[in-house]
Amino acid sequence: MWGGGMMFNEIVVQKDGKRILDEFDIKTAEFEKGYYTADSIEAVSTICSHATRAGVKIFNLVSVEDVIVREKKVTGVVINWSAVEMAGLHVDPLCVQSRFVVDATGHAIEVIKIIEKKVGMDLMTQTGKVMGEKSMWADVAEKKTLENTREAFPGVYVAGMAANATFGSFRMGPIFGGMLLSGEKAAKLILKRLRK
Amino acid sequence: MWGGGMMFNEIVVQKDGKRILDEFDIKTAEFEKGYYTADSIEAVSTICSHATRAGVKIFNLVSVEDVIVREKKVTGVVINWSAVEMAGLHVDPLCVQSRFVVDATGHAIEVIKIIEKKVGMDLMTQTGKVMGEKSMWADVAEKKTLENTREAFPGVYVAGMAANATFGSFRMGPIFGGMLLSGEKAAKLILKRLRK
Amino acid sequence: MWGGGMMFNEIVVQKDGKRILDEFDIKTAEFEKGYYTADSIEAVSTICSHATRAGVKIFNLVSVEDVIVREKKVTGVVINWSAVEMAGLHVDPLCVQSRFVVDATGHAIEVIKIIEKKVGMDLMTQTGKVMGEKSMWADVAEKKTLENTREAFPGVYVAGMAANATFGSFRMGPIFGGMLLSGEKAAKLILKRLRK
Amino acid sequence: MWGGGMMFNEIVVQKDGKRILDEFDIKTAEFEKGYYTADSIEAVSTICSHATRAGVKIFNLVSVEDVIVREKKVTGVVINWSAVEMAGLHVDPLCVQSRFVVDATGHAIEVIKIIEKKVGMDLMTQTGKVMGEKSMWADVAEKKTLENTREAFPGVYVAGMAANATFGSFRMGPIFGGMLLSGEKAAKLILKRLRK
Amino acid sequence: MWGGGMMFNEIVVQKDGKRILDEFDIKTAEFEKGYYTADSIEAVSTICSHATRAGVKIFNLVSVEDVIVREKKVTGVVINWSAVEMAGLHVDPLCVQSRFVVDATGHAIEVIKIIEKKVGMDLMTQTGKVMGEKSMWADVAEKKTLENTREAFPGVYVAGMAANATFGSFRMGPIFGGMLLSGEKAAKLILKRLRK
Amino acid sequence: MWGGGMMFNEIVVQKDGKRILDEFDIKTAEFEKGYYTADSIEAVSTICSHATRAGVKIFNLVSVEDVIVREKKVTGVVINWSAVEMAGLHVDPLCVQSRFVVDATGHAIEVIKIIEKKVGMDLMTQTGKVMGEKSMWADVAEKKTLENTREAFPGVYVAGMAANATFGSFRMGPIFGGMLLSGEKAAKLILKRLRK
Amino acid sequence: MWGGGMMFNEIVVQKDGKRILDEFDIKTAEFEKGYYTADSIEAVSTICSHATRAGVKIFNLVSVEDVIVREKKVTGVVINWSAVEMAGLHVDPLCVQSRFVVDATGHAIEVIKIIEKKVGMDLMTQTGKVMGEKSMWADVAEKKTLENTREAFPGVYVAGMAANATFGSFRMGPIFGGMLLSGEKAAKLILKRLRK
Amino acid sequence: MWGGGMMFNEIVVQKDGKRILDEFDIKTAEFEKGYYTADSIEAVSTICSHATRAGVKIFNLVSVEDVIVREKKVTGVVINWSAVEMAGLHVDPLCVQSRFVVDATGHAIEVIKIIEKKVGMDLMTQTGKVMGEKSMWADVAEKKTLENTREAFPGVYVAGMAANATFGSFRMGPIFGGMLLSGEKAAKLILKRLRK
Repeated sequence: MWGGGMMFNEIVVQKDGKRILDEFDIKTAEFEKGYYTADSIEAVSTICSHATRAGVKIFNLVSVEDVIVREKKVTGVVINWSAVEMAGLHVDPLCVQSRFVVDATGHAIEVIKIIEKKVGMDLMTQTGKVMGEKSMWADVAEKKTLENTREAFPGVYVAGMAANATFGSFRMGPIFGGMLLSGEKAAKLILKRLRK
Repeated sequence: MWGGGMMFNEIVVQKDGKRILDEFDIKTAEFEKGYYTADSIEAVSTICSHATRAGVKIFNLVSVEDVIVREKKVTGVVINWSAVEMAGLHVDPLCVQSRFVVDATGHAIEVIKIIEKKVGMDLMTQTGKVMGEKSMWADVAEKKTLENTREAFPGVYVAGMAANATFGSFRMGPIFGGMLLSGEKAAKLILKRLRK
Repeated sequence: MWGGGMMFNEIVVQKDGKRILDEFDIKTAEFEKGYYTADSIEAVSTICSHATRAGVKIFNLVSVEDVIVREKKVTGVVINWSAVEMAGLHVDPLCVQSRFVVDATGHAIEVIKIIEKKVGMDLMTQTGKVMGEKSMWADVAEKKTLENTREAFPGVYVAGMAANATFGSFRMGPIFGGMLLSGEKAAKLILKRLRK
Repeated sequence: MWGGGMMFNEIVVQKDGKRILDEFDIKTAEFEKGYYTADSIEAVSTICSHATRAGVKIFNLVSVEDVIVREKKVTGVVINWSAVEMAGLHVDPLCVQSRFVVDATGHAIEVIKIIEKKVGMDLMTQTGKVMGEKSMWADVAEKKTLENTREAFPGVYVAGMAANATFGSFRMGPIFGGMLLSGEKAAKLILKRLRK
Repeated sequence: MWGGGMMFNEIVVQKDGKRILDEFDIKTAEFEKGYYTADSIEAVSTICSHATRAGVKIFNLVSVEDVIVREKKVTGVVINWSAVEMAGLHVDPLCVQSRFVVDATGHAIEVIKIIEKKVGMDLMTQTGKVMGEKSMWADVAEKKTLENTREAFPGVYVAGMAANATFGSFRMGPIFGGMLLSGEKAAKLILKRLRK
Repeated sequence: MWGGGMMFNEIVVQKDGKRILDEFDIKTAEFEKGYYTADSIEAVSTICSHATRAGVKIFNLVSVEDVIVREKKVTGVVINWSAVEMAGLHVDPLCVQSRFVVDATGHAIEVIKIIEKKVGMDLMTQTGKVMGEKSMWADVAEKKTLENTREAFPGVYVAGMAANATFGSFRMGPIFGGMLLSGEKAAKLILKRLRK
Repeated sequence: MWGGGMMFNEIVVQKDGKRILDEFDIKTAEFEKGYYTADSIEAVSTICSHATRAGVKIFNLVSVEDVIVREKKVTGVVINWSAVEMAGLHVDPLCVQSRFVVDATGHAIEVIKIIEKKVGMDLMTQTGKVMGEKSMWADVAEKKTLENTREAFPGVYVAGMAANATFGSFRMGPIFGGMLLSGEKAAKLILKRLRK
Repeated sequence: MWGGGMMFNEIVVQKDGKRILDEFDIKTAEFEKGYYTADSIEAVSTICSHATRAGVKIFNLVSVEDVIVREKKVTGVVINWSAVEMAGLHVDPLCVQSRFVVDATGHAIEVIKIIEKKVGMDLMTQTGKVMGEKSMWADVAEKKTLENTREAFPGVYVAGMAANATFGSFRMGPIFGGMLLSGEKAAKLILKRLRK
């Protein structure tokens, strides 16, 4: 969201998504009926600020190289400095254990692709494989994103565009509402399971 | 056409193609019977000048990242600054809606390849897939280019070398007539449908 | 500040600097007497969120290529997409006029260096030239940063490490208090002049 | 001019410059009093088309590596394929003789810099050296560009932004009128001498 | 091992692995029950020093480009300067004959991949092909590494992470014991055959 | 051959190959029974000198981009400056017609791979496809290279390592005799057909 | 020393230098009178192993970005991950305080160059500046290296080729004895001062 | 000479230069009075073949990194694999002693520049420094090249374009006669001194 659409620092959200920006007190302006614009920098920094102050720990400058498995479940991630790969160095990674992993890496679905390639078990998709993002059909995609926001492998949720890329649905238009709602849904689903 | 053949700023057209250069009043010289040379810079800039003055809007420095679909039809393109990809940045694209899209990106068939990979429906070729450009057989290819200049997916026409790359025909020699005639044919086909 | 010290997402501020983090309600923990740590992501995103919500407009993905001058004063900046330079393209810039320009680009002093090279007038330093950052002497540097936070050319203020790089003082240690206080001082100085 | 301002395919010219676009029948729209916009692609391709049809021979994909001198005068240029340098190859150049050379390479003043470095004689500037482009001061620069459009070394004229870069004047704003008028002036000055 | 875990120059070994560090008199410290840390530089340089002094000849700066085959056996390697490939030069390799080859190139299994691709015979794995490294499951992987340390093609042993990558087992955690024990086992297996 | 083995400017030929070096009066020294060394620079430049003086026309700095086909035969090559691809430019190629084409591009079999991919007809190999170079088995390979030196597609001969790469035989050791004999055989085969 | 001479893993030491290899029990062979060869891998790894086991702490993968000064003395170094610069990231460094710093970075004299450029005080050389390495004169250089192994700035010693690069003496031949003796001398000089 | 002029494999020599091509029996064709063309590949390979067969030893793929000095004379060169620098490796060089060194590296004067920068003594030019190549003035340059073919530093001769670059004369046109004659002169001068 940081770069807006084609580097114009403005994002568009539909009415449903605006509710989330309102919760964070981010300024919006009605652009046309049902669509609102917001400053992309204000939106990202405010959500990030709230998240970190609520206790989220962001490991900046770090990439996921692999996942940790135990029996038939993902139980953490194998991380390394992003700079290590960028600089072409050979340095061993470290591990972080976790009850749930969320892949919200968008089109790239970096974690799900590692699981498909290296874990040797089926994903929870129709084919058991990554089904791939389809071309853009914004209306349908916004709805599908929410439906597809769910567990894609034991211990791993997908959110945002990664949900559609995993379960084979359409690309969203440059309207960020579905993405925000998807994140909220993923958080609630995991919270419910953590509270059990 | 801009770079001529192997960077020599001269292009060759056969008699049929010369008619189009004549329409634009571009100077040609008979090279051998039925073949004419023209200055590649003069040819490209003059055609481009006429096109823009006739109302064509060229979005310079922009690449097509994806297509927009509605039901079983392409209804536009998803664009981004070419510089964004060249610089390795992660910035969201914007959309442009369109009644028809023409893929005239030559050997690369950039739009058709996206459709084949991401739309999940058959192309209008014999195999339903991109059939691929064959090696060079100039005579046959010049004719085939015109035949292959047609709709390759609902809402998407192919023109120039992209036509042969899509429908699996031969590469044209360094003679630009078939390419010019193909563009003209694509324009006429779409015009007819727009006027309906 | 985003990357912390050597990619560890933690920053250190001394007592004076902590006051500013407190104003933004950023969590700090006493590390040793007079020194406090904070999460670098929380600190940056929270300050950025407050700034944008207070009306600061951040033009993301944009670089300053040149300055605008009128008589003997800088009256704005000449900007371009950063991606244009990263991709090696030749594209003309646009201009933004401004009553004051603040160079807070750190060691690089990108704006001041352009002025030194291209405006053809003396800077307000002892030598009239950029005096250059010296090696690290944290205690002295923290104090000097505040002193050096002032107008360095008519219409242009320097803040943070850019202040010491311009006026030739020492590099600060990896303690971010002086930087925060310098920004605050620059803001107050300019506010006073804008209100005149 | 091709990339417009910051990749927006629109250029601005003031009233004086509009006269030249009018001569080429390029569409303009009044933007604010005395300032007109035009499509950058239409403007460039139309001027290029007229130039080539009037007999200008453009050697595309070629760079100037050096100049040819005879006594105290430049009498041509030493050229090579631009691809040779881009690919890091070592290939010898060829020569093109010419009664006059125009350096219209903008900020880079590629020909003048070669002369300053390699010919071992003074330029016709106040200091005998390249005086360098100053920061942007649009109004003054537009006027100075015309004044500075003149012979800068025996046999070599400078035009457009190269004129100010050579004679040490300000950078023009993103308004292209001065550039067009400068090209026209250089052409007339040389024509007069060729006709002698 | 040289870079430690994520560039922190510290390695961890479990009790079994510690025995090998003890043999080389490398300092270790108990970190938690059954796990010991050592300095990665001390560990690597000490083992390397002992190996070379015991007669191992290390060809530094050299890569394996291909293998030598005789009937159905690998009998050596085809080597070249690594700098030749890094610099994109075309230079012919040389050969080194050997009774046994050990592929200890880790995740990359550089020698085994050449054999799979170019020798045209099955590997000694369940599928006859490289079975691929799975995601991380440290406990299981440590044990499997030892089991998989064996002949993978006539004349070629695999050791360390290359063993699991060849025979399709899990990735080891950032604990280096299994790797050390695997090397020892490979050495013993080959020694037995050389002595026959 | 120019770079020798691993950049040592010395080549090795066996007795059969020495005959060809003798024909060109290139100095050789017996290294061990049946094997001779020669200076790689002397060998390459002398053969090249004789070839050009005998009328061979070498187009330096040019790559083969595609082949020309007529019915079921290759009748020439489509060439471009190598610098064009190295510099990432888009420039159209030119054609050269030829009664026979010899692919002597070694491991890369650049022409044969284009035919396999783009002509859409079987090669004259057992599988109709490129069978691929196998690992090194010098003795067998030297003999096979001669056998495999033949027509691989109507109008296209393969010589040197390209012969084994096409017909699926072993890699030759760093002994250049087979390569020289293969070139001689290809020349004689084509000569016979040209004389018909 | 790791890469030997031109990638041949062999080093040469003269008689004086051999004494140090002997101390570490590194195998040497007399090559000609007074000159001995050793395996470069054995030499480097053995010295490194002894150093780390004697308590030297090597921070691998780390570069020196700047020095710390207090009054007129260097009191430590400012370090960062080398990968940060290699990957073109902007990340703040950390500091390490130290009673003495040794610049043994060879021709590059990385620390001394920072001091010359940023500390703003004279070095202890004849000119107060870096005097620069001269071309190779092995005999003279070996002796000068020992003489030049001394304090070059308060708190900073130079050793090995860095000594000659700082004090302006000749380059040593590919004989490593002087380098070893220089390191020993630097260690002894600092030890004496630490013991005071 | 290998790449001809702008990649056209043809070179031009004037009458004086033709004599040398005649000596090597290289075919030439009169182009215009006093000027002859030859095939660049034939010319280079034939001269190289004769040179190596006459006993010249060419070390291919090797660069000169430094010179060896003894008192006030250059007595050899310090060489390294070119691939080492291209690949960004740190590997020590080796030395080659020589009674005379000829710098024939053209515009780059690689050896002379090392001497100017590192030996700390004057060159035998008017200023004691490299005087630099001037722009192209073919007639004058051809003559000056012969005059400037002489000793430029004790033990070091310059030949070809390096002669003019050292002694500050004009660039030669793309006519290779002066270059050939310069090489011949350098050879004769050195021969005379070697015979003393």
